[in-house]
Amino acid sequence: MPLAASVESSRPPLHLSHQAATAPEQPISRLMAEALRNPELISLAAGFVDERTLPCKLVAETVERLMQDPVAGRSALQYGLTEGDAVLRRQIAERYFAADHATHADAMVLSTGSNQLLHLISDCLLEPGDVVICAAPTYFVYLAMLRDLGVTAISVAGDVEGMLPADLDATLTRLTDTGRRDRVKVLYLVPYFDNPAATTMSVARRREILEVLERHDASGPPIALLADNAYRDLRYDGEDLPCFVDCGADPTRTLETGTFSKNLSPGIRVGWGVLPEPLRGAVLRRKSVIDFGSPQFNQAIVRELLVGGDLDQHLREVLLPSYRSKRDAMVAACERWLRPIAGVAFDVPEGGMYVWLRLPETLNASPGSSLWDTCVQHGVLYVPGEYCFASEGAPVQANTMRLSFGVQEETRITRGIELLAEAVRAQLG
Amino acid sequence: MPLAASVESSRPPLHLSHQAATAPEQPISRLMAEALRNPELISLAAGFVDERTLPCKLVAETVERLMQDPVAGRSALQYGLTEGDAVLRRQIAERYFAADHATHADAMVLSTGSNQLLHLISDCLLEPGDVVICAAPTYFVYLAMLRDLGVTAISVAGDVEGMLPADLDATLTRLTDTGRRDRVKVLYLVPYFDNPAATTMSVARRREILEVLERHDASGPPIALLADNAYRDLRYDGEDLPCFVDCGADPTRTLETGTFSKNLSPGIRVGWGVLPEPLRGAVLRRKSVIDFGSPQFNQAIVRELLVGGDLDQHLREVLLPSYRSKRDAMVAACERWLRPIAGVAFDVPEGGMYVWLRLPETLNASPGSSLWDTCVQHGVLYVPGEYCFASEGAPVQANTMRLSFGVQEETRITRGIELLAEAVRAQLG
Repeated sequence: MPLAASVESSRPPLHLSHQAATAPEQPISRLMAEALRNPELISLAAGFVDERTLPCKLVAETVERLMQDPVAGRSALQYGLTEGDAVLRRQIAERYFAADHATHADAMVLSTGSNQLLHLISDCLLEPGDVVICAAPTYFVYLAMLRDLGVTAISVAGDVEGMLPADLDATLTRLTDTGRRDRVKVLYLVPYFDNPAATTMSVARRREILEVLERHDASGPPIALLADNAYRDLRYDGEDLPCFVDCGADPTRTLETGTFSKNLSPGIRVGWGVLPEPLRGAVLRRKSVIDFGSPQFNQAIVRELLVGGDLDQHLREVLLPSYRSKRDAMVAACERWLRPIAGVAFDVPEGGMYVWLRLPETLNASPGSSLWDTCVQHGVLYVPGEYCFASEGAPVQANTMRLSFGVQEETRITRGIELLAEAVRAQLG
Repeated sequence: MPLAASVESSRPPLHLSHQAATAPEQPISRLMAEALRNPELISLAAGFVDERTLPCKLVAETVERLMQDPVAGRSALQYGLTEGDAVLRRQIAERYFAADHATHADAMVLSTGSNQLLHLISDCLLEPGDVVICAAPTYFVYLAMLRDLGVTAISVAGDVEGMLPADLDATLTRLTDTGRRDRVKVLYLVPYFDNPAATTMSVARRREILEVLERHDASGPPIALLADNAYRDLRYDGEDLPCFVDCGADPTRTLETGTFSKNLSPGIRVGWGVLPEPLRGAVLRRKSVIDFGSPQFNQAIVRELLVGGDLDQHLREVLLPSYRSKRDAMVAACERWLRPIAGVAFDVPEGGMYVWLRLPETLNASPGSSLWDTCVQHGVLYVPGEYCFASEGAPVQANTMRLSFGVQEETRITRGIELLAEAVRAQLG
């Protein structure tokens, strides 16, 4: 190998494209590094799902059944359609939409997790310099994706039901008045058990948001409503709510997405989105160049689990009881150790995987802060709330944190909150 | 649903980003539409794999075994590392590289098929206006990807061993002389059983190509050698050859990629690439934003199949004998019906899934040509060779076609070639 040996060390490295060279590290990487350095830490940071709910037996049985039928088995191991398995698309439409199932199934694209679809959608709708409006706080991976695309995120304040319509209205008016309305292309919302705010939008709130969008429709280019329904199935109290399309949203500018990563398995990773034309066509053109469609095998497994009712049974018997207990454990621990501290606030989430904690305003929970270091010393890790705020719009709340009850067992959740409360008290001196 | 009903039809559709709005339809889509309209057609076009070789039983047994171990099973259903399963990366390094296995495993990124990785790599290395040098003909999906990125592909002529070093040298010299060398960032090659040319590069040819790259290294920015080893395991005659890195290529500018789509299952779709820094870091940053890493479940299945030797047994006992017979059937049919036609030429591929057919130069095999229409009327479909040529460089050969023996059974392959020969003879009058 004389060529390599003689020249390797003296040569300059490959050049990266401008976008690749300037892409920042994902902030969450810092947390993961911290967790790896300190394996004893109780991580309330990771958004991983509960290990014990992962359906090993169910998946093995489903694959066994699928592979016994040579036609279905071979089809699952072959290339499929770029838009994904037709029967699964129909099943998803029937599961999450009140009507027009055939139409929604036709407009659906399946993906390798819904994040891949969020990326494709954003890439097909947004140019550098465009504006996406989102909640304060919002999903930090989506914020990182927007930064990567050179897109400006502007956040709008919320309450326990999510984004405030009056604030959305004021933001759109301000953008119109300052000549920036033309760049507003997308409103991004996580309407069910928001990540990280853990809020759920009532039907009335959804309709108010739609009315605001309606009012501003003619003032600039159409605004796509991107509804990320990732956690919809993870409801522990109360009744399911209709999605935006079923609340009267205009289907020509509403994008409903979802995933089977949270309610089934992130290792199988099947996501979906119902997209209006011409967006659907554009997403499919890109996807056909990138990966020809997501793995058919994974789609076939999810299809079998939906057709037979196995996913619902798994949710009812395993996943929801487990997460409900863990939610209750985290809320009980927060009530016991954190609520008594003056200035602490949190709401009880009806579903999802998170509690959003507000600390006294004098405290800073940012990474590298004294509170952060104290928590690491005490042995507990969280997602700093500041990661979840856009750089423009509603102000960053550095005194917040996202606490996940997804991964840890109940005793560890309880102990983690106790350690966190100790650290907070130590800061308050 | 009053909002939607009242406004839906009168409103303008969502705007697409410039890139999405101007992206052309993939040419292959036309072929797929033709095949769907005419289900009786014998398609020698599709690059799908042989249905009968798809390992239903093996996959079911592997998933069963994997899911019986709660630790391994749950880990397969959970999120994994962005770079992919560590044991699988090591297995792949040991399978395809002669030495430095730990180093290659560390530099490896797993993906959802190797195409996703080709896209990530290209996105991280190339800016609009940059130049990629490729063979004439070359993989048409990669050409579509480059068009999508605004990148210019320039093709270099080849022979039965692939790209001609003298022509690569002349092309780089010409680009230097015309002030365009600064935009040349990547040389793309399919060194094993090329898609579509079905050529395989000898070790001597690989070294000659490396010498040309070496000579032009200082004349501009580093040129990444992107070696797409998708078909390497599909060898029906002769001995495996070492990859470029094992032929002395500088690992700091050589990108080796591969996939388990062709040798195992495109429905499971696990791809890999060994990437030098800083490219690997850039690809991981993008991937962590797009999908947090590819499905762990699929990687775990491939890992188990490699660790236990099951994939090699499957290749030896099922896949290679089947494809070898089909290759022989296609070659025999070509010899019988096509070779006697003056001006027809083809080589016998040592592996892969394709025969590259050259017709008399007076014939045009483009879609919409008289020959194309006659073939469809006769009942046979092919990939027009012109799809596989870059718009610049070695001239388009419109008298060529890619014939795949991947999907059809032997009798259909034989019949397809007979129909094709009839159509060709009809054209020649």
